[in-house]
Amino acid sequence: MNLEGFPDLPAFPPGEVWLAGAGPGDPRLLTVLALHAVSRADDIVHDALVDSRVLRLARQDAVLLPVGKRGGRPSPKQDEINALLVERARAGRRVLRLKGGDPFVFGRGWDEVTALSEAKLRFRIIPGLTAGLAGTALAGIPATSRDTNHAVVLAAGHRAEGQSTADWEALGRLGQPLILYMPMAQLEEIVAALQRGGLPGDTPAALVQSATTEDERVVESRLDALAEDAERHGIGSPCIAVIGAIATLRRRALASMVGWS
Amino acid sequence: MNLEGFPDLPAFPPGEVWLAGAGPGDPRLLTVLALHAVSRADDIVHDALVDSRVLRLARQDAVLLPVGKRGGRPSPKQDEINALLVERARAGRRVLRLKGGDPFVFGRGWDEVTALSEAKLRFRIIPGLTAGLAGTALAGIPATSRDTNHAVVLAAGHRAEGQSTADWEALGRLGQPLILYMPMAQLEEIVAALQRGGLPGDTPAALVQSATTEDERVVESRLDALAEDAERHGIGSPCIAVIGAIATLRRRALASMVGWS
Ligand SMILES: C[S@@+](CC[C@H](N)C(=O)[O-])C[C@H]1O[C@@H](n2cnc3c(N)ncnc32)[C@H](O)[C@@H]1O
Ligand SMILES: C[S@@+](CC[C@H](N)C(=O)[O-])C[C@H]1O[C@@H](n2cnc3c(N)ncnc32)[C@H](O)[C@@H]1O
Repeated sequence: MNLEGFPDLPAFPPGEVWLAGAGPGDPRLLTVLALHAVSRADDIVHDALVDSRVLRLARQDAVLLPVGKRGGRPSPKQDEINALLVERARAGRRVLRLKGGDPFVFGRGWDEVTALSEAKLRFRIIPGLTAGLAGTALAGIPATSRDTNHAVVLAAGHRAEGQSTADWEALGRLGQPLILYMPMAQLEEIVAALQRGGLPGDTPAALVQSATTEDERVVESRLDALAEDAERHGIGSPCIAVIGAIATLRRRALASMVGWS
Repeated sequence: MNLEGFPDLPAFPPGEVWLAGAGPGDPRLLTVLALHAVSRADDIVHDALVDSRVLRLARQDAVLLPVGKRGGRPSPKQDEINALLVERARAGRRVLRLKGGDPFVFGRGWDEVTALSEAKLRFRIIPGLTAGLAGTALAGIPATSRDTNHAVVLAAGHRAEGQSTADWEALGRLGQPLILYMPMAQLEEIVAALQRGGLPGDTPAALVQSATTEDERVVESRLDALAEDAERHGIGSPCIAVIGAIATLRRRALASMVGWS
């Protein structure tokens, strides 16, 4: 790769926390800054969603600190993750907090920013490609197209303990395409509420599981068959649900589209 | 940068079109695939929004084909751009279609995908960081945070000739944060309609102009003062407007946040 003329990549100062998105999976979708960060960090505090191919780019002597749900074990609480970041940075480590997708799209990145600010620690932000836009596009589903929509809604289908979720009826009334993160746990309730809001049962829909990984699976469906189709095809997490006219565009493109794998 | 262990970057076959997002501006926010594409392409068909620092990474003998609005001259029509891509690919060139942000977030990328499919030309997609998520995050405004929102709406404030725009009243009723692309031309109408829909005049709002470039400017405001503040501060295009609780979070983070410039 030709890096001549490329702007300087800044040094990673000890004691700083860099909060970066790793994108949906394929390491070639890392930003240059994120790749730089991964290759320089002393400590990498990462979610379960961060692809193992990305973690393999870390320094051999880097310390990997997984803080996601793993093999049935619950993940550490957000407070504990915040405390870990603060502790490592105070110890003078170059701390990379690496999250799947983008840190600020349903990724709790802001909780950590707040904790770091309160601790008066210096931090930097490296946005990443979010699964709901990049994973879908690479599966042939655009977030917007001139003929279908002027707006697109990114929404979280599932919220942490006791938190309320989006107002699905209102989103059904809005009638604009929806891109749902973490849709699986409450898919039937969400579909029912969207229909109560007025979204027709035959609204096109699709599921994109494990985008840009070798487990990628795409299922085309319609709103009222989405839960059943998910089950029939054995679709699991991580998965994005797309509901709206954009979900049909795929067929037109696929014949000519070349994948990256 | 340590690229040991990095997956192979595919060759760019003559006659293919790679449709890539260049992100909001800073070349260090290119994905590795996009950087690879820029450094390999024979022809780069690019918008006015693509940063000159990115274009400087092209091969010395690459042909740059600007197709955006420039110095008052109107941009070529979409049909002409499509025809240019087809013509260049048929001539056996390695054609990179490079767009600001992400190609499929209000970027007309799908028109081009459709044209390439119809012409039976092989193409690939490289998503980019969209200005509305990445530019805002780097200005200290997260798209989501646990305390403020379960959903976020990306909407286009301006549409091409004669096209209708989003239903702003309905978006006002929804009451979730809005991230508006191309907000300036119709800012007053949009604000009025959002208020008619029920969004309070004191809803926090912000404008992020030219994110990640040396012209970056951020103005914090509130819904009913947004148009006036934009004018008073001389905010121009390209600009993202953020409307909703996420627009206030910024202050808490800024003291500790380190920028990339
Ligand atoms: C806690 S959210 C984090 C989202 C992440 N911050 C982002 O911007 O993509 C986790 C959800 O992201 C989505 N997700 C992340 N990576 C994905 C992938 N490779 N394929 C499909 N969905 C993915 C799924 O909906 C998953 O349940
Ligand atoms: C035709 S749209 C293309 C959006 C692009 N595809 C993306 O994903 O960012 C052009 C609009 O994008 C936004 N935009 C693009 N780059 C920007 C930047 N660096 N700072 C602020 N806004 C930007 C502005 O709202 C601008 O009017």
